[in-house]
Amino acid sequence: MMVVMKSGSSQAEVQQVISLIKSWGLEAHLSQGEERTVIGMVGDTRKVQRELFLHYPAIDRIVPISHPYKLASLDFIPNASTFPLDGFEIGGEGIVVIAGPCAVESREQMLETAHAVRSAGAHALRGGAYKPRTSPYAFQGLGEEGLEILAEARELTGLPIITEVMAPELVPLVAKYADVLQIGARNMQNYALLHAAGESQKPVLLKRGMSATIEELLMAAEYILSHGNRRVILCERGIRTYETSTRNTTDINAIPVLKSLTHLPVILDPSHSTGNWKYVTAIARAGVAAGADGIIVEVHPHPEEALSDGGQSLNPNRFAELICQIKSIAAAVDRSMAPAKVQGCV
Amino acid sequence: MMVVMKSGSSQAEVQQVISLIKSWGLEAHLSQGEERTVIGMVGDTRKVQRELFLHYPAIDRIVPISHPYKLASLDFIPNASTFPLDGFEIGGEGIVVIAGPCAVESREQMLETAHAVRSAGAHALRGGAYKPRTSPYAFQGLGEEGLEILAEARELTGLPIITEVMAPELVPLVAKYADVLQIGARNMQNYALLHAAGESQKPVLLKRGMSATIEELLMAAEYILSHGNRRVILCERGIRTYETSTRNTTDINAIPVLKSLTHLPVILDPSHSTGNWKYVTAIARAGVAAGADGIIVEVHPHPEEALSDGGQSLNPNRFAELICQIKSIAAAVDRSMAPAKVQGCV
Amino acid sequence: MMVVMKSGSSQAEVQQVISLIKSWGLEAHLSQGEERTVIGMVGDTRKVQRELFLHYPAIDRIVPISHPYKLASLDFIPNASTFPLDGFEIGGEGIVVIAGPCAVESREQMLETAHAVRSAGAHALRGGAYKPRTSPYAFQGLGEEGLEILAEARELTGLPIITEVMAPELVPLVAKYADVLQIGARNMQNYALLHAAGESQKPVLLKRGMSATIEELLMAAEYILSHGNRRVILCERGIRTYETSTRNTTDINAIPVLKSLTHLPVILDPSHSTGNWKYVTAIARAGVAAGADGIIVEVHPHPEEALSDGGQSLNPNRFAELICQIKSIAAAVDRSMAPAKVQGCV
Amino acid sequence: MMVVMKSGSSQAEVQQVISLIKSWGLEAHLSQGEERTVIGMVGDTRKVQRELFLHYPAIDRIVPISHPYKLASLDFIPNASTFPLDGFEIGGEGIVVIAGPCAVESREQMLETAHAVRSAGAHALRGGAYKPRTSPYAFQGLGEEGLEILAEARELTGLPIITEVMAPELVPLVAKYADVLQIGARNMQNYALLHAAGESQKPVLLKRGMSATIEELLMAAEYILSHGNRRVILCERGIRTYETSTRNTTDINAIPVLKSLTHLPVILDPSHSTGNWKYVTAIARAGVAAGADGIIVEVHPHPEEALSDGGQSLNPNRFAELICQIKSIAAAVDRSMAPAKVQGCV
Repeated sequence: MMVVMKSGSSQAEVQQVISLIKSWGLEAHLSQGEERTVIGMVGDTRKVQRELFLHYPAIDRIVPISHPYKLASLDFIPNASTFPLDGFEIGGEGIVVIAGPCAVESREQMLETAHAVRSAGAHALRGGAYKPRTSPYAFQGLGEEGLEILAEARELTGLPIITEVMAPELVPLVAKYADVLQIGARNMQNYALLHAAGESQKPVLLKRGMSATIEELLMAAEYILSHGNRRVILCERGIRTYETSTRNTTDINAIPVLKSLTHLPVILDPSHSTGNWKYVTAIARAGVAAGADGIIVEVHPHPEEALSDGGQSLNPNRFAELICQIKSIAAAVDRSMAPAKVQGCV
Repeated sequence: MMVVMKSGSSQAEVQQVISLIKSWGLEAHLSQGEERTVIGMVGDTRKVQRELFLHYPAIDRIVPISHPYKLASLDFIPNASTFPLDGFEIGGEGIVVIAGPCAVESREQMLETAHAVRSAGAHALRGGAYKPRTSPYAFQGLGEEGLEILAEARELTGLPIITEVMAPELVPLVAKYADVLQIGARNMQNYALLHAAGESQKPVLLKRGMSATIEELLMAAEYILSHGNRRVILCERGIRTYETSTRNTTDINAIPVLKSLTHLPVILDPSHSTGNWKYVTAIARAGVAAGADGIIVEVHPHPEEALSDGGQSLNPNRFAELICQIKSIAAAVDRSMAPAKVQGCV
Repeated sequence: MMVVMKSGSSQAEVQQVISLIKSWGLEAHLSQGEERTVIGMVGDTRKVQRELFLHYPAIDRIVPISHPYKLASLDFIPNASTFPLDGFEIGGEGIVVIAGPCAVESREQMLETAHAVRSAGAHALRGGAYKPRTSPYAFQGLGEEGLEILAEARELTGLPIITEVMAPELVPLVAKYADVLQIGARNMQNYALLHAAGESQKPVLLKRGMSATIEELLMAAEYILSHGNRRVILCERGIRTYETSTRNTTDINAIPVLKSLTHLPVILDPSHSTGNWKYVTAIARAGVAAGADGIIVEVHPHPEEALSDGGQSLNPNRFAELICQIKSIAAAVDRSMAPAKVQGCV
Repeated sequence: MMVVMKSGSSQAEVQQVISLIKSWGLEAHLSQGEERTVIGMVGDTRKVQRELFLHYPAIDRIVPISHPYKLASLDFIPNASTFPLDGFEIGGEGIVVIAGPCAVESREQMLETAHAVRSAGAHALRGGAYKPRTSPYAFQGLGEEGLEILAEARELTGLPIITEVMAPELVPLVAKYADVLQIGARNMQNYALLHAAGESQKPVLLKRGMSATIEELLMAAEYILSHGNRRVILCERGIRTYETSTRNTTDINAIPVLKSLTHLPVILDPSHSTGNWKYVTAIARAGVAAGADGIIVEVHPHPEEALSDGGQSLNPNRFAELICQIKSIAAAVDRSMAPAKVQGCV
C-alpha cells in the first residue's frame, strides 16, 4: 500500500505517518514528488485498513498495490484450473453446456427436460429445488422432493446435477444429491454459506452478485478456496445497471477480464443476463466468442407454462439450435464442444 | 395487469390472449386504441408471471398495475407504524439515534463506547458480533462472546441493543441477546434469514441491499411481515453507483419515497452511505431534514485503531456534536429528539 | 397511454380524469379492475406529458403504450436499412470493419495507419481531427489540418473517412471532408448538433451516450431521421456502471435488443467499451457473434506513443489478427466480411 | 503518478520503465516492496497518458497521485469563492433560491411566475428559452422571443435571470439577455460550449452530467475557469442509477464532497434530482442541511398545464412553503437566507 500525503504536508506530518506504519511492524519507504509525498508500506499489509487514514488530515488517500485475493489469482496458479465432472472436464479446451429448468416443478417436467437437453447435447443438468424469489407469494420450490427428482433424472440420463443451495444448514442435504452446488447471485456475499460450501469439498458454481465487482466475485471465491476446495466455477449472470430493456446487463467484458486475473473456469448465464429468451442464443454465442468455458441456460419443455423464469427459458427445439450455434462459434475460436453423452448438432 | 399487444396484431391474436387469461380464472377487459390494443386482466393476478408473455409474439409487453407488496403498503395500514423500544418509540414524532462501533472488538472498547454514546444522547446501541467481510482474511467478529459483551453494555447503560444476524440458524441465539435483529445489506434477499427473522417475532432493522430497488426493499420487508411480525424498521444505507468519491451513494430520495409508500419507520445510516466520517454529520442532517425517523451511526472511541470501518466512524466528541446538529434539524422540521436516557446537547 | 388510478379512488375522481383527457381532444376508455381503475387514452397522445398527472392525487401513475420513436422503428420500416458507402454496404449481410487512430496526430502517423489497416482488410478509416477531452490540458486535435490529412489518406487508400464533429457550426466544414459524420457519446443529446447532422444529409455514425438508454439512443437517431436523413448507423460503445476493471461496460445485450427494435445498422466499438487493447479482440468477436453489422476499432502504428487512447489501441499486427478472428466468427453466424479494397486474412 | 509493476517483474523490465520515464523528461523514483516494485514519476506528469502502460506487460497499473484539476481546487484557492449577483452574493453565508418555470411558455406565464416567486422570496429567476428535449416531437422552447420575455421579467421584478444556452454560437445572444448562463446536464462535456461560456466572462451555472463523476464535473468547470472566468456555480441535479422510483437519484453526498474539494459555490436542483414535486421540498431541505449554498427549483403557476417538466414543478403556494422550510433549515445550520427583493416567510 502507498500513502499519498496531501500537497503541502509538513515534515512532522510525514514523520507521524512513518511512525504509525512502523508501529504496525511494517517498513516505510519515502518518495518525495514535486507536489506530493508518497510513503510506501513494505511487509504484510493485509491487516491494514485503508480507511483508517481518513482520520489523519495530512493524508490524501491510500492506494492498494496488491490484489486482495491470493488463491484465486493467476499469480498463485498460473495455468487454467480444470477439473472433471461426470465424463467431461470444465475449464479446459472443450465448451460445456449446462441446461435445465429454473425450478423443478414436477417429476414429469424435470424428466422431460432432462431427456430433451441430453438429446440435444447438454453436458449437465440444472434445476432449482430451493428457489430465491423476490416475492414471498411466489412459488418457492419443491425442497427435498425436488432433490430426489433431480437424482432420478441423473440416474436416467447420466447427466451430472447442478442445483442451488440457499442456506448453510442445507449444504449437507443438497450435497448428498448434487454434483455441483450452485451459490446464487443474491448469496454471493452470504459468507456463512460460502464457508459451508467450501467445507463441503463439493464443486461449486458461484454466480456473480447483482452488483458485485469482478474483484468482489474473486474475493467470494477466495472464501471457498480458503477451505482447500479448489473446484470453483465462476459465472457471469448480468449486472444491474440503469438500462431497463433487459432484465440485467450482460457484462461481457467480465469474461476476458476474469480470464486475465484468475485460473478458475468462467461460464456465462445468458438466460438471467438478458431475461428474455429472444436474446439468449445471441448472447450465448457472444459469451463463447469472448472466451467463456461454457454456458448455463434455462430450458423448459413448455416455457409459457413455467412457474418461474418462463420468459427467459428456451424450449427444447430452440435449445437444440443453440447447441448448433455454440458449436460453430467454438470452432471459430479454435475450441470444440466437450464430450457429451449425446453429441449435439451432428 | 395490462397486456399491451403489438401494433398490427390480428383479431385472432387478441382472442388467443383473451382465452389464455380466461384459462387462468381471470377476466379479460379489452381496450382498443388507435395504434394498440390493451387487454386488462381482472382478478387475483399475483400468480401470473409477466415474463411468460415473451413467448407470445403478438404481445409487446405486460404492465403491472398493483404494487407487488401488500402488508408493507400504506394501502394496507394508512398510518405510520410506531412501536416502542426500551423507553422510546420508533416511527413516531421523535428522532431516534442508534450508535456504536461497527464491530464489538473487546469488552473495554464496547463499554467505553456504550457509556460515551449514552452520555451524548444516543437512544440505542449498535455493535456487530458477527461481521460480514468481503475478505476471508479480515476480522470476522467475536461471535457469541461479542453478544455477551453487548448484553453487559445494555445492563450497564440501559440502552437497547441492535446487532446483526447473518444466518438463519443463528437467529435464536442472537435473539436471546438482542433487542433488535439487524439484517445487513448483503442479506436483504437471503430469504431463509428473512423467514427466520420474521418467525422470531423480534423487532428487525432491515437494511437496503447494495443495489436493491425501493420496491425490492419493501418486498424483503414483506417476507418478515408475512410471519405476523410487524416490527420492521427500514434502513437506507447507500446504493452502488458509478460514483467512486464515496463508498456508496446515499439515496436521499428514498426517504420521502418510502414515506409515501409504506407505514414502516425509515432511518438512515450515513456511515455506510458515505464511508467517510468527514461526510457523516452533513448526511445525517440531510437524512433528518428529508424526513427520516432516525439515524444509525458508527462511533468508536479510537476510530483510527478500529478493526473495521474505522474510516467512517466518529469519535465520541464528534458524535456529541452530531447529536446537537440533529437536534437543530429536528426542530427545523417540527420534530424533536425521542426521549433518551441522557438528553444530549443541553 | 393508460392512466392507473389509485386504489379506492372515487367515481368523481375518475370522472375528473376522463374530463381532462377529453379536454385534450382524446377519447377516454374506462377499465374497472378489482383493485384499480385504469383509463386508456385514445388518439394522438404524443403531446401529453406523463408527469403532469403527478398533480392529480387520485392518479397512481401513467403508463406509456407506444414507443416514443417512429422513424427508427421496425414498425415504420420493417426490413433492415442498408446503404452503400464507398464500395461496400453497411447494414447488410457483410460485416464492416472501421479502423484508425483515436486522433489524427500527424500526416505520417495517419498515412502509416491508413495503409496498414487497408492492407489488413479494413473497409473504412476513422480518425479524430476534433477531440473531446475530459481535461482542457490534454491534446485537443489538429482541427482542419487533421481533416486535410484525412482527405489525403482517403485519396491514397480509397477508404472512406469517418470523423467526429463536435459542434453544429462545424458540420459544413467536416461534411466537406468526411464520408460519414461521427457524433460522439458525449454529444448524443446535443440536439443542435443532431439537427445539423440531420440537415447535412451525410451518413451519420451515432454513438450511444455514456449513460443513455437504448430508447434514448433511438430518440437521438429520430432527431437525425426527422430531417429525411435516413443514413444513420448506431454504435454501442459501452455504458457507465459501477464496475471499474474496464473503462466502460460493453452492453452486449444492446446488439440483439436494437436489432429487434430498429431497422438501422448497429455496430460495436470494442475499443471504448473496454478501454484496454487486451480485451478488444475478444469483445469484437462477441459483438459480431451477437449480431452486430460491424465494428469500429482504434488502431495506432505505435500505441505506446499515442497522444490519446493509446491504451485501447491495437497495433497493426494485432489488428490484422483481429480481422482474421472476426472473419471466422462471421462465418460461424452465416455472414461474411463485406468486400474490402484488400481482402484481409487470406 | 506511480507505476505499479507486476509481481515477479525482472530488473530489466524495471529498468525499461525507468528509461521510458526519463525519456519524457521526468525523474523516476524506485520503491521496492516485498511483492511489488513501485516507480514514482516526478515532474510535470499532466501530459503522461496513464493508459499507455497497458502496452508494457510488466506493468500492472498506473496510479495518479495528483488531482487532474487545478483552478477548481481548494489547493489553488483555499477559501470559498463568492461573487455578487444583482443584490446578493452566491457562495457566502446566505442561502440563495433560484426559481422559475422549466420553459418560458408565454409572456403571461413567465411574468405571473416571476411576480409569484419574487413575492415568496426568491433571489433569481430561471426559465428556459431553448429547451433540450429527448424527443424531437416535444416543445423546443420559444428561442429569442423567450429571452426577450425573460428580460422583461427582470425589468419588472429586479430579479437576475438564469437561462440555458445549448450551443456555442448562441452564447453571445444568450449572454446579451442573461445574468447567468446555464449549461445543462446533457452539455456538461460539450467542450465547445464550455470554451464559449468561459470566454463570455459571464457567470455560469454548470449542471452535473447525468452520469458524470464529481471529478468530471470539476474538470468541466476547469474548462470554463481556464478562460479566466472565475464565476462558476456547480449544480448537483441527480445522477442516473438503477433506481426507477424517482427520475434521478439525488447524490446528496456530492454536496459535502464538493465542498471538501473546491472553492466554487455548490447548489442543488431538487426538481430534476427527484422528478416529482411531492419530493422536491424534502430534498431541498436535505440539500441545505448537507451544506449547499442554494437551490434551484422549478415553479409554474399551473404545473398541471406546463408544457415541460410539469410533474416536478411546484405551484406558487407550495414554493412559498418551501422558502419557509429552507429558512428554518438554514437557521439550523447557522446560516441565513441571502437578502432578497422581498424577504420570504415573515
